[in-house]
Amino acid sequence: MSTIQKVVNHKYFSNIVISLILLNAIVIGIETYPNIFEPNKGLFHKIELIFLWAFTIEIALRLIATKPWYNFFKSGWNVFDFVIVAVGHIFIGGHLASVLRIIRVLRVLRAITVIPSLQKLVAALFRTIPTIGNIMILLSLIFYVFAVIGTTLFRDISPEYFGSLGHTFITLFQVVTLESWASAVMRPILVDAPWAWWYFVSFVLIGTFVIVNLFVGVIVNNVQEVAVICEKPELEETEEQQEPVSLETEVSNLRKEIAELKDIIVSLDKNKTQAP
Amino acid sequence: MSTIQKVVNHKYFSNIVISLILLNAIVIGIETYPNIFEPNKGLFHKIELIFLWAFTIEIALRLIATKPWYNFFKSGWNVFDFVIVAVGHIFIGGHLASVLRIIRVLRVLRAITVIPSLQKLVAALFRTIPTIGNIMILLSLIFYVFAVIGTTLFRDISPEYFGSLGHTFITLFQVVTLESWASAVMRPILVDAPWAWWYFVSFVLIGTFVIVNLFVGVIVNNVQEVAVICEKPELEETEEQQEPVSLETEVSNLRKEIAELKDIIVSLDKNKTQAP
Amino acid sequence: MSTIQKVVNHKYFSNIVISLILLNAIVIGIETYPNIFEPNKGLFHKIELIFLWAFTIEIALRLIATKPWYNFFKSGWNVFDFVIVAVGHIFIGGHLASVLRIIRVLRVLRAITVIPSLQKLVAALFRTIPTIGNIMILLSLIFYVFAVIGTTLFRDISPEYFGSLGHTFITLFQVVTLESWASAVMRPILVDAPWAWWYFVSFVLIGTFVIVNLFVGVIVNNVQEVAVICEKPELEETEEQQEPVSLETEVSNLRKEIAELKDIIVSLDKNKTQAP
Amino acid sequence: MSTIQKVVNHKYFSNIVISLILLNAIVIGIETYPNIFEPNKGLFHKIELIFLWAFTIEIALRLIATKPWYNFFKSGWNVFDFVIVAVGHIFIGGHLASVLRIIRVLRVLRAITVIPSLQKLVAALFRTIPTIGNIMILLSLIFYVFAVIGTTLFRDISPEYFGSLGHTFITLFQVVTLESWASAVMRPILVDAPWAWWYFVSFVLIGTFVIVNLFVGVIVNNVQEVAVICEKPELEETEEQQEPVSLETEVSNLRKEIAELKDIIVSLDKNKTQAP
Repeated sequence: MSTIQKVVNHKYFSNIVISLILLNAIVIGIETYPNIFEPNKGLFHKIELIFLWAFTIEIALRLIATKPWYNFFKSGWNVFDFVIVAVGHIFIGGHLASVLRIIRVLRVLRAITVIPSLQKLVAALFRTIPTIGNIMILLSLIFYVFAVIGTTLFRDISPEYFGSLGHTFITLFQVVTLESWASAVMRPILVDAPWAWWYFVSFVLIGTFVIVNLFVGVIVNNVQEVAVICEKPELEETEEQQEPVSLETEVSNLRKEIAELKDIIVSLDKNKTQAP
Repeated sequence: MSTIQKVVNHKYFSNIVISLILLNAIVIGIETYPNIFEPNKGLFHKIELIFLWAFTIEIALRLIATKPWYNFFKSGWNVFDFVIVAVGHIFIGGHLASVLRIIRVLRVLRAITVIPSLQKLVAALFRTIPTIGNIMILLSLIFYVFAVIGTTLFRDISPEYFGSLGHTFITLFQVVTLESWASAVMRPILVDAPWAWWYFVSFVLIGTFVIVNLFVGVIVNNVQEVAVICEKPELEETEEQQEPVSLETEVSNLRKEIAELKDIIVSLDKNKTQAP
Repeated sequence: MSTIQKVVNHKYFSNIVISLILLNAIVIGIETYPNIFEPNKGLFHKIELIFLWAFTIEIALRLIATKPWYNFFKSGWNVFDFVIVAVGHIFIGGHLASVLRIIRVLRVLRAITVIPSLQKLVAALFRTIPTIGNIMILLSLIFYVFAVIGTTLFRDISPEYFGSLGHTFITLFQVVTLESWASAVMRPILVDAPWAWWYFVSFVLIGTFVIVNLFVGVIVNNVQEVAVICEKPELEETEEQQEPVSLETEVSNLRKEIAELKDIIVSLDKNKTQAP
Repeated sequence: MSTIQKVVNHKYFSNIVISLILLNAIVIGIETYPNIFEPNKGLFHKIELIFLWAFTIEIALRLIATKPWYNFFKSGWNVFDFVIVAVGHIFIGGHLASVLRIIRVLRVLRAITVIPSLQKLVAALFRTIPTIGNIMILLSLIFYVFAVIGTTLFRDISPEYFGSLGHTFITLFQVVTLESWASAVMRPILVDAPWAWWYFVSFVLIGTFVIVNLFVGVIVNNVQEVAVICEKPELEETEEQQEPVSLETEVSNLRKEIAELKDIIVSLDKNKTQAP
C-alpha cells in the first residue's frame, strides 16, 4: 500500500497528470473544428475513453493512497476532481454530446487542482468573496428595487429590455457594465418618456458608486494584509512588551535581594558591635 | 409600557420584520407579471393592505417604545421608515397605481434599516461623500462649462445630443461613462465639424482624469483608515515608552541602594579596622 | 490706498465675486435657449456689459491692492483671471458671437480661483501631472508607432477610421477608451484583413496596461503621502531606541559597582582572616 | 580606441541620436500622406538610406566602444537596437514596402533605449509581469474553457462571433473589455437561445473579477514597495529587539552575582560566628 503512496507523491506523478490535462485540453479544442472531428468521430471517442480512464486511475490511486480513504473527500479540490471524472462516466454512455463536451472541458480546470501555485491563487480569490458579502447583498437590494421600478415603468415602452423582471435584471447588469446603456437602452426610451433619464442616471451613479466601493474594499483588504505583515514585527514587539514587565519584576526581585543583603549586612554589623 | 419595549427589543421582532420585508418584496416582484397580477387584482390589494398595516404596527410599536417619543425621529433611518410607510397610506386611496408601486418597492430598502451590518455599510458609503465633495463641485463646474460650449457649438449639427442644455448634460454624462462617446456622439458631428474632436477628446481626458482622482480619493481615504489602525499598536507602544523610563528609575534606585550598601560595608570595614 | 486693500481682503468682497460668477453662469446658461435669447438680445448684451465691467473693476481693485503691482502676475491664478476678463473686452466689439460665448463661459472656472478649497484641489490635480510625465511620453511613443502602422495597413480598407495620421490618432484614442473598438472599428476591418486582430488586441493590451500603470502611479503616489504620515510616529520611536542603550550602560555600571562591592567584601574577608 | 569611447560617452552623442530618432519619426509620419510621398518617392528613399546608415554607424561605434565587444549583446536594449537596424538593412533591398515601413517605425521605440528615465519606466513595467504571471495562467484557463463551451453552443447560432475557436477567443476578449458584449454579442443570441445569458453574465463576472484582482495585484505590489520603505525603521527596531534579551541576561547575571555576594557574606558571617 505504501508503494501507492510513493507513486502518488512521486514528482513525476503530478507532472504526468498536468501533461495529460493539457493534452486532453488540446484534443477537446481540436474537436471544436467540425472538418477534423466529423470524419474521425470513432477515433476521438477512443481517445476520450483513454483520457477518462487515465484520470479515473489517477483519482483511484490518490484515493487509495489517502488513509483513511474518506479523508480524501475532506478537501474541496478532491471532491471537484472526483465529481468532474465521475460525471464524465455517467454521460459518456448517453447521447447528450454537447453536455458531455462542456463537462469534459471543465477537466481543464483540474490544472488549478494539480498546480499548487494556481490552487493558492484561486483560494485567495475565493477568500475575498466574504469580505465583499455585505456589498453584494446591498447591490442585490438596489438591483431588485430598480428592476421592479424599471419593469413597472418601461414594460410597454421597451419590451425587449424591460419586458419582465428577468429581462430587466439582464438589462440592469448590462447598464451597470456601462455597455450601450445610453445608445441602446436609454435613448430609445427617452423618445417616449423624456423624464426617464433620472432612472438611468441614478442607477448608473448608485450602481457604479457601490461597485467602485466593492473594488476599493478588495484593494483595501489586500493592502490590509500587507499592513498585517507590516504590523507583524510589532506583534513580536508586543511579546517583547511583556518582557520589559518580566525584566521589571527581575529588577524588583534584584532590589528585594539587595534589600535582604543590606539587612544581613546591617544585622551582621549589629551582631559584631554587640558581640564584642 | 415596558412590555412594548420588551417586544420591540426581542430578537424575534427584527427577524419577523426582515421576513415581512422579504415576503413583501417577493409579492411586489410577482405583481410585475401581468398574467398573474391582472386576474388577482383584488387578492393582491388585500395582501398589500395586510403588509401596510403590519409595517404600520411595527413602526407604531417602535415609536411608542422610544421615550420620549420624539427621540424616534432623531435617527435618519427611523424617519426613512416612517415616511415610506406613511406615504404608502396616502397613495393607497388614490389611483396612481405605478407611483404606489414605486413607493412600495422602496420598502425593500428598509432591509438596510433593519439589518445592522447593512446599515453600517450604507453609513460608511454615505460618509465617503463629504470627502469627495470638492471634487463633485469641480466636476459640476467642468460639466457646466462644457455643456454651455457644447450646446452653443453643436445645437444645430446634432440636436438629438446637444439640442438644449438639458440634452447636453445627459450627453456629457454618457460621454464621461465612455459609452458610445465616439461611435454615436462624436463621429456623426465630425462629418460637419472636423475640428470638433478637440471638444470630445479634452472632455474625455479632463472628465476621466477628475473622476479617477475621485476614485483615488475614496481609495486613499479607506487606506488611511487602515493606516490609522496600523498606527494604533504604536500608540499603545508609546505607553510602553514610559515603562522603560520607570525601569530606568528602578535601576537607578537599585544603584543608589547598592551605593548605600557599599558605603555601609566600607564604613563597617573602617569601624572594624578602627575598633580593634 | 490701504482702503482698497481693506475692501479686497474684506470677507464680503470674495462672497460678492462668487455670487457674481454664479449669476453670470446662470445668465450664460439661459442664453443657450434661443427662444429666450433671440427676442432679448439687447437686454442680454447690456447684462453682459455689466458683468464684464464688474469683473474688470474687481481685478483692477485686486491689482491696485497688490504692492508692487507686478507681483499680481506672479500667481498663475491671477494671470488666468486677468486674461479671461481682458479677452472678453477684446471680443465684445467683434462679431464672433460663439467665440465670445465660449470665452465668457470660461469665467465660470474663475470660481476655482476665488474658492480656496477648489484652488487647492486643482493645484493638487496639477501636481500629479509631473509624476505621470514619463508614462505620458511612453504612451505618446506607443500611440505614434501604432498610428503609423495602422495608417499604413488600413488606410485603404477603412478610410473613415484610418484615412490619415490624424484620423488614426482619434481612432486609437477611441480604441484605448475601449469604446466600440471591436464592433465599429475592428470587426469591419476583419472582413478584409482577418489577421488584423493582432494589431487591435496588442494595442488594447499595451495601451490599457500602460494606462492602468498610470492610474496605479497616481494611487501609489497618494498612498505614499499617507505612508509618510504613517512613518512619523515611528521616527519618534527611534528616539526611544536610544533609551534602552542608556539603560544597558546603567545596568553594566550597576554590575561594575557590584563587582567592586564583591572585591571589597572579599578583601574585607581576607583582611579579617589575615588580621586575627 | 579610447577616442571612440570618448565619442560614445559624450553628452552630445546621445542628444544627436535622440534628435535623429525624432527626425526619423517625423519623416516616417510624413510618408503616410500619399500626396506628399508619391511624387517624392526617390527623395524619401535617399533620406531613409541616410537615417539607416546614421543608425548603423551609431550602433557600430557603441559596439566597438564596448570591451570585449560581445558584452554589447548582454543588454537586451542593445540587442533590440541591433536587430531593429539590421532588419532595416535586410528589407531595404526587397519590395515589401509596408513590412519595411512597420520595421522602420519600430525605430521610434529606440527613444526608450536612449532616454534613461524611459528605459527605467519600461523596465519597471516589465518587472510587474511576473507578479501577475499566475493570474495570466488562470485567465488563460478560464478563456479556454469558455472558448470551447462558447464554440460548442453558439457555433451555429452566431457564426460571426463563435464560428471557430479563434473567432471565439477574439469575441471573449471583446466581451472582457465590456465592449458591445450585450448589444452586439449576447442579445442577438438571446433571440434563439434565451438561456444563453448565464454564459455571458458568468463570463463577465468571472473575467472582470479576475482582471480586477490582477489590477489589485499590481497596485498592492506597488504599495508593498512603499510598505518596505515603511518597514525599514522597524527592521532597525528588530535589531533593538535582541538588546532587551541581552539586557535580561545582563540583569540575571547581575542577580547571580548578588546571590554569590550574599553567599559570601553569609559564609563570612558563619565563619565569624564559628571562628571566635
